[in-house]
Amino acid sequence: MYDVGIIGGGPAGLSAAMYAGRLKMKTLVLTKERGGTIITTNDIANWPGIKKIEGMKLAKNLEEHALDYPDVEIKDALVTGIKKKDDNFVITTQSGEYEAKTIILAAGTEVRKLGIPGEEEFSGKGVHYCALCDGFFYKDKTIAVIGGSDSAAKEALLLTQWASKVYIIYRKEQVRAEPVNMDKVEKSDKIEIINNTNVTEIKGGEHVDTLVLDKEHNGSRELKVDGVFIEIGRVPGTVLVKEVGVKLNEKGEVIINRKSETNVPGFFAAGDISDCFFKQAIVASSEGVTAAYSAYVYLQQKKG
Amino acid sequence: MYDVGIIGGGPAGLSAAMYAGRLKMKTLVLTKERGGTIITTNDIANWPGIKKIEGMKLAKNLEEHALDYPDVEIKDALVTGIKKKDDNFVITTQSGEYEAKTIILAAGTEVRKLGIPGEEEFSGKGVHYCALCDGFFYKDKTIAVIGGSDSAAKEALLLTQWASKVYIIYRKEQVRAEPVNMDKVEKSDKIEIINNTNVTEIKGGEHVDTLVLDKEHNGSRELKVDGVFIEIGRVPGTVLVKEVGVKLNEKGEVIINRKSETNVPGFFAAGDISDCFFKQAIVASSEGVTAAYSAYVYLQQKKG
Repeated sequence: MYDVGIIGGGPAGLSAAMYAGRLKMKTLVLTKERGGTIITTNDIANWPGIKKIEGMKLAKNLEEHALDYPDVEIKDALVTGIKKKDDNFVITTQSGEYEAKTIILAAGTEVRKLGIPGEEEFSGKGVHYCALCDGFFYKDKTIAVIGGSDSAAKEALLLTQWASKVYIIYRKEQVRAEPVNMDKVEKSDKIEIINNTNVTEIKGGEHVDTLVLDKEHNGSRELKVDGVFIEIGRVPGTVLVKEVGVKLNEKGEVIINRKSETNVPGFFAAGDISDCFFKQAIVASSEGVTAAYSAYVYLQQKKG
Repeated sequence: MYDVGIIGGGPAGLSAAMYAGRLKMKTLVLTKERGGTIITTNDIANWPGIKKIEGMKLAKNLEEHALDYPDVEIKDALVTGIKKKDDNFVITTQSGEYEAKTIILAAGTEVRKLGIPGEEEFSGKGVHYCALCDGFFYKDKTIAVIGGSDSAAKEALLLTQWASKVYIIYRKEQVRAEPVNMDKVEKSDKIEIINNTNVTEIKGGEHVDTLVLDKEHNGSRELKVDGVFIEIGRVPGTVLVKEVGVKLNEKGEVIINRKSETNVPGFFAAGDISDCFFKQAIVASSEGVTAAYSAYVYLQQKKG
């Protein structure tokens, strides 16, 4: 029986584990990928206090910090379900069941992938999913954003701060951004929208250099770019919470308060899976830390 | 005219500045002490990803990270007032006035005083509020820590590095430290806890030599000490916000939401000055980062 079962091993889950360890809670982290989303980023420049660090290295630091506390255990496992059992929770994985008095769900989100050739191969080498994380590295370069949502427009706008040229490539007729953002897109000298067009392949050498389009643009089906940001949505990993009755918002994100509490007592959530406003590693970490402390307070109160 | 005026140079303010710099906002940080409260801590072991770092070093890292962005400026100044001027804010300091379109208040907290006779008189002459700053002067001496929080326990533990004897004097039944710290307190030969006791007066000649207790300890209401460290919490420095009409809670903390917004448009707050549940450096940093992004969104929307 664990005091806390943490699902997810990214910044939220690992920071929660570190604090849970400090609080001497018997802690189990179950993760399908140590480090989570940050390991897909080459250089992270926005973790406060570190000018530049590889995502993989930051993940390793967080993991080692958590494991510095003897009450913390990390297992590589895919969680397939969570259910209530009396006052506790049972977590099912492909390799067995675990019981915990509290849960911190920090399973993150997954980017929706395009599923085209080159996307996997150039991930982190010109294929990105977060302008704020990685846009900084494209000073005076040409980049493309794939997608037509408000998020895609905002990503493109943000990228104009660094890039000299930003294409928005959208498969449908018309980018559907909020008017305020759409106005800005239209006013920008740097942004060019290519509608009614699909990207069918991403090509390059060491690094991305070309997008293959399903339709000619300026007389060619090859578009030269230095990088591409895919912004066609994210999928929160919240399929797990349905049985427990945790409330989600309209985006499928877990609704938490500033104590990282969900509507289910003893069930906390943190990081990108939550309905947080600004999905950044440092915010995830803070929500994880807060969730660990809330779990501690919850168990103390239960003891009386 | 700055895009954002950040008041406070601790983890919240410096993290906000770093993100504001990334977002290319013209940013001014005004701080009376670079690093804020963390510089009073010797070893920080709970900043995720770093097993152990001096408070001063972490502060330096955060500052250098912020200054890595050319739009960020940090000035050492004591802010004496903030007021609205049309859509913007005017910040008054002892060395001049600054105007900013948005404010991020990250001014942190100040030490809470006991308010007993002798406290003021012997301040700096045996009465202290920071073990790391002043503990060094008590090599092989007897000192007392007043307070029963986790911070009080940590101060006492730090003081055992120099002192031969450390009393923890607490008015309530039981010191409430984090388990990991409580263990260390209990294992220390140097620390003696005196519970259920108040200090009513601090006495001495040139320097503190006696604490008067409201209850006998070893047959006497006078306890001989060479120095006393008062660690009974901190109070938010929110006197600045009254003129702007920012709402505070019953503890005097600035009420913010998960976007680090206050009730006043364009006025954000972050860190220990906010009504956050769990006052930790990493939480402050996250709130600062969120405030910077909220300020950015606010300015974008205003531009239309």
